[in-house]
Amino acid sequence: MAEATNMRLRLPLLCIILEVILIILFGTLVEYNVDTDAKLWNANKNQSATRHDYENEFYYRYPSFQDVHVMIFVGFGFLMTFLQRYGFSSVGFNFLIAAFSLQWATLMQGFFHGMHHGKIHVGVTSMINADFCTGSVLISFGAVLGKTSPVQLLVMAIFEVTLFAVNEFILLTILGANDAGGSMTIHTFGAYFGLVVTRVLYRPNLDKSKHRNSSVYHSDLFAMIGTIYLWMFWPSFNSAITNYGDPQHRTAMNTYYSLASCTLATFAFSALVNPEGKLDMVHIQNAALAGGVAVGTAGEMMLTPFGSMIVGFLAGTISVLGYKYLTPVLESKLKIQDTCGIHNLHGMPGVLGAVVGAVTSALASPAVYGNGLQRVFADGEPGEWNAQSRGGFQAISLVVTLGMALIGGLVTGFILKLPIYGAPPDTHCFEDGLYWELEFNAYNIKLSVI
Amino acid sequence: MAEATNMRLRLPLLCIILEVILIILFGTLVEYNVDTDAKLWNANKNQSATRHDYENEFYYRYPSFQDVHVMIFVGFGFLMTFLQRYGFSSVGFNFLIAAFSLQWATLMQGFFHGMHHGKIHVGVTSMINADFCTGSVLISFGAVLGKTSPVQLLVMAIFEVTLFAVNEFILLTILGANDAGGSMTIHTFGAYFGLVVTRVLYRPNLDKSKHRNSSVYHSDLFAMIGTIYLWMFWPSFNSAITNYGDPQHRTAMNTYYSLASCTLATFAFSALVNPEGKLDMVHIQNAALAGGVAVGTAGEMMLTPFGSMIVGFLAGTISVLGYKYLTPVLESKLKIQDTCGIHNLHGMPGVLGAVVGAVTSALASPAVYGNGLQRVFADGEPGEWNAQSRGGFQAISLVVTLGMALIGGLVTGFILKLPIYGAPPDTHCFEDGLYWELEFNAYNIKLSVI
Amino acid sequence: MAEATNMRLRLPLLCIILEVILIILFGTLVEYNVDTDAKLWNANKNQSATRHDYENEFYYRYPSFQDVHVMIFVGFGFLMTFLQRYGFSSVGFNFLIAAFSLQWATLMQGFFHGMHHGKIHVGVTSMINADFCTGSVLISFGAVLGKTSPVQLLVMAIFEVTLFAVNEFILLTILGANDAGGSMTIHTFGAYFGLVVTRVLYRPNLDKSKHRNSSVYHSDLFAMIGTIYLWMFWPSFNSAITNYGDPQHRTAMNTYYSLASCTLATFAFSALVNPEGKLDMVHIQNAALAGGVAVGTAGEMMLTPFGSMIVGFLAGTISVLGYKYLTPVLESKLKIQDTCGIHNLHGMPGVLGAVVGAVTSALASPAVYGNGLQRVFADGEPGEWNAQSRGGFQAISLVVTLGMALIGGLVTGFILKLPIYGAPPDTHCFEDGLYWELEFNAYNIKLSVI
Repeated sequence: MAEATNMRLRLPLLCIILEVILIILFGTLVEYNVDTDAKLWNANKNQSATRHDYENEFYYRYPSFQDVHVMIFVGFGFLMTFLQRYGFSSVGFNFLIAAFSLQWATLMQGFFHGMHHGKIHVGVTSMINADFCTGSVLISFGAVLGKTSPVQLLVMAIFEVTLFAVNEFILLTILGANDAGGSMTIHTFGAYFGLVVTRVLYRPNLDKSKHRNSSVYHSDLFAMIGTIYLWMFWPSFNSAITNYGDPQHRTAMNTYYSLASCTLATFAFSALVNPEGKLDMVHIQNAALAGGVAVGTAGEMMLTPFGSMIVGFLAGTISVLGYKYLTPVLESKLKIQDTCGIHNLHGMPGVLGAVVGAVTSALASPAVYGNGLQRVFADGEPGEWNAQSRGGFQAISLVVTLGMALIGGLVTGFILKLPIYGAPPDTHCFEDGLYWELEFNAYNIKLSVI
Repeated sequence: MAEATNMRLRLPLLCIILEVILIILFGTLVEYNVDTDAKLWNANKNQSATRHDYENEFYYRYPSFQDVHVMIFVGFGFLMTFLQRYGFSSVGFNFLIAAFSLQWATLMQGFFHGMHHGKIHVGVTSMINADFCTGSVLISFGAVLGKTSPVQLLVMAIFEVTLFAVNEFILLTILGANDAGGSMTIHTFGAYFGLVVTRVLYRPNLDKSKHRNSSVYHSDLFAMIGTIYLWMFWPSFNSAITNYGDPQHRTAMNTYYSLASCTLATFAFSALVNPEGKLDMVHIQNAALAGGVAVGTAGEMMLTPFGSMIVGFLAGTISVLGYKYLTPVLESKLKIQDTCGIHNLHGMPGVLGAVVGAVTSALASPAVYGNGLQRVFADGEPGEWNAQSRGGFQAISLVVTLGMALIGGLVTGFILKLPIYGAPPDTHCFEDGLYWELEFNAYNIKLSVI
Repeated sequence: MAEATNMRLRLPLLCIILEVILIILFGTLVEYNVDTDAKLWNANKNQSATRHDYENEFYYRYPSFQDVHVMIFVGFGFLMTFLQRYGFSSVGFNFLIAAFSLQWATLMQGFFHGMHHGKIHVGVTSMINADFCTGSVLISFGAVLGKTSPVQLLVMAIFEVTLFAVNEFILLTILGANDAGGSMTIHTFGAYFGLVVTRVLYRPNLDKSKHRNSSVYHSDLFAMIGTIYLWMFWPSFNSAITNYGDPQHRTAMNTYYSLASCTLATFAFSALVNPEGKLDMVHIQNAALAGGVAVGTAGEMMLTPFGSMIVGFLAGTISVLGYKYLTPVLESKLKIQDTCGIHNLHGMPGVLGAVVGAVTSALASPAVYGNGLQRVFADGEPGEWNAQSRGGFQAISLVVTLGMALIGGLVTGFILKLPIYGAPPDTHCFEDGLYWELEFNAYNIKLSVI
């Protein structure tokens, strides 16, 4: 076993080769955009005499970017530390694959979303988009958590980032869809991609590691750090790349109300489905976030706080019920072993968010949006606006996303099944000791543990 | 006992009923304000030709809002995880009652602070104000921590938020008081409200849970996460709703210096009052924050860094001395069981802050503030400014706040005493197991704990 | 021993005396600057009619300041909690000496960087600079962690802050060097200063505390909180005091790419240097950050993402190799006991950053920077720009910094060697119990630990 899972050559080689490729591609393809280039920004400023430094996109987007960044590295990373013996891997592999994915995503998204004379232009908006794509990979990571080697995760990221960019291109560019917070592109895609991957990697004897596939008291508290950061910064996530002004402001606020309502639903149903009325940390850690997922598409629209709270309440409810009743069925009947329950946090709420987005689009009118219609909907030009058509394209976008995720996950899953990546044996899943040096010398166990 | 504290019906019913009421009220009463409404913002922009997207209040306030949000959910939540067996409840119930309170506060504050044609207008400023009001509830939570069921906490929040909004209306609107960082409205009110509630809920036999009413090594480290976040973001808290420009900038800086000075006082007196000169984590976790509380009123004024540092030093000193000498007396003589010592962190420093604010107001003059006088003091119009009168109104505001808190806490305390909320028995206070599923399967205790 | 290390009088006296001196000096020397003063800001606004509140430096700098603040207090504080029995001291003493240093730094930097009619003007930029200087002290703290009393640390801070300000003055004002992110002023200076101090304080019998000089499972997870926050916010750190507009934007982005690349290098070499291919938490916690250090000088220049990624990769590589092969040699041959391995995280990457900065300066041309040249390089005026000369001055700056750090560390080390500060005995290094009240009453060890 030690031989089979040894990372000594596999992991370094893969990391180094990938980074060298990234560096070469960045060297040949990537350029500063007008807001980050010394020459362009200052030339632009002097010519127009209307562009001030405070109009640099940095000041509109960077605070949002940092919040998103915290969600990706602290939020996802610590949320997955709930496992009693997999904390190092949760936060560590999250760190590794995120650091890789954001670089790879910059290239893939730049390639699909419009090259400028053969070059990819980068700035804070591309950084946010890269972090978003990374989020999708980390969602899938949640499904296979504890059952995959870091080499497998990097390989998964290569494929998932690429397909994410293709799907995003189809949705945003071809279909003209709205999806600022990524209910479809990030959550639905990441969730169903990951679920299919874990289905292909099904382990009939995973029971052998059952004793490690659970939390302990302190690991649940570490996970709450992740949960709370995701919850707090979700308004920034959904609003990070909307248009400036009212859309960004409105999106953040709608998300705030959706999450607050979702939290009450989560506590309510968590206690209700337990015979003794006790709360389950798994629900609180996860389902309370579903409200952010479910307004990822409609959040920038005139959903109103009222609408946001209804959506949040529904999302929290279906998420808790999913953890309680659906996850066991998925595992026993469909052989989908979903470690973190991403189907409940990202899958169903993502689909709900897509549907809410389609309905809200189909109800959008100049009477409500005024001159702001075009600032929310790219095709909202006066006289040309067709709400039903927009709603229809939103619905098609969901179908495309599901199709891409299922097919992409299937192919990627079979690639990951090859016995060359040092996957952990059934007896040693959810175990840090396989990949990390764990030689502790606790000189005084009694004091050090308390 | 299991029967008496069972939350299965009580908690879900209360959460669902409250959220449904909130949703209905939001649906009938709440509207986007001009900065979040697609039609209004863009109409406004086009007409005046002087309003740019970068002037949307989102860009002035949202970074501050996020810092405040972190203080409410991570700061307060983790600060209270210091108890060895109450981490889930500390961070979890903090999460629940904050999510409820911010929604309820939006309505109550909107109602009292000015309806617009029968509607409450919301945007980032109302979000900050709602979080502020929530902070007050969480302060009171600190007094009753470990001795109340989540149902009791929600009921307390209903009343406290309402009274907070009334008191805030009296202070800010009727008396024209300055209190940007809430030394009075948030800290003094929350502290004395909570202290009276815990007095009414006095448990003569709380000793039976004494063994759980203390920290262990790791729980103290989790609590330090809360402390440090509160400390770092307090400058954002105090400056979040001041006027744009110099007041916001100055408030943040004054708070920064007050806290730094307070921290040195805290370490000094913590070592000094210990016979062996050892530092006490309780002091560091709490008293070091008193400097933020104590400049909550005067921070936006021309207090100067010098003045801020003196105030911070005093606040840290009285806070440590309070923990050491006053808290035991409050419990033994006045039967006030104050779990987190909120009297030392929010009560006395809040009163100090109110006094400092009154004095600083009474000393404010056009000579020092120039054209900025009116931007700090609403009644600072040229020729009409009366510093003594302003100082007097500030002092009256403190008295009103104390009165509201004491009466409100008394009434709320008796309501919470009804034996219908599933309060924990004296033998099971400070115990997560009562409300949370705690079935841990630590397969290898030795490794999992170290 | 209890006598010798007793802090009861020493620590309170020192803290109180220092704070009183600070308050007096602030009272006589410190004034609001034009952006924080009510009179000046509003006079300025009314006269020019071109200065709007959104041009107050608060809105350009405060979000960056808060990120830097998080790095100083959470980042450094929790990074050092990796020791199994020194968590309270790590985060607590970090808190204490940072709170002192930022006040002292405000004075020292204000004194050296230009008084205004005998007064020091303060605002958000001086707050960032004070936090930067504090960072340097915390780096040195990493070298002596576990082997020094809080009194020693405060004394070290007094001297180090002063010398930091002198060195910074020489570099930025006299030599006109660029060093926005402080590869030289912060990292190189802090690292070599600390290494010399720990050399002077060499303990031949430190082996007696060897059993405590290591991590346990949960302490490593706490440390990862520090690591991840440092990693995420490093782009804000390096860009916090660059010029507005493209330089700030570009610096953040270059740092982001450098860190991502560095992370892959860190994982690669951590697995490669381990006989079983297992990852080492020490490397991940530290070396992954070296990419931020190494672009601290060149980050604001037109380094390009490509260049940043190469620098990051090199930094991660030398940092891991340093931990593995150099640190043991430094200890055994040079008698440098470097608890946190600051030579690998701040020393070598800092020097690398200085060299990269010198080279990038020497290659800077108007052709690439256009009108932006002068906004990056103060002496980049049209017709006067001499790239080679600039590169030369950058190189001289590194030499000056190393000299100042070595001499300053030597003198400070001998001062700290005096037997009056209550330093821990060799048998009780890395032990919280010496300075903190640790009377835990874990009523149910089994449950409380899991």
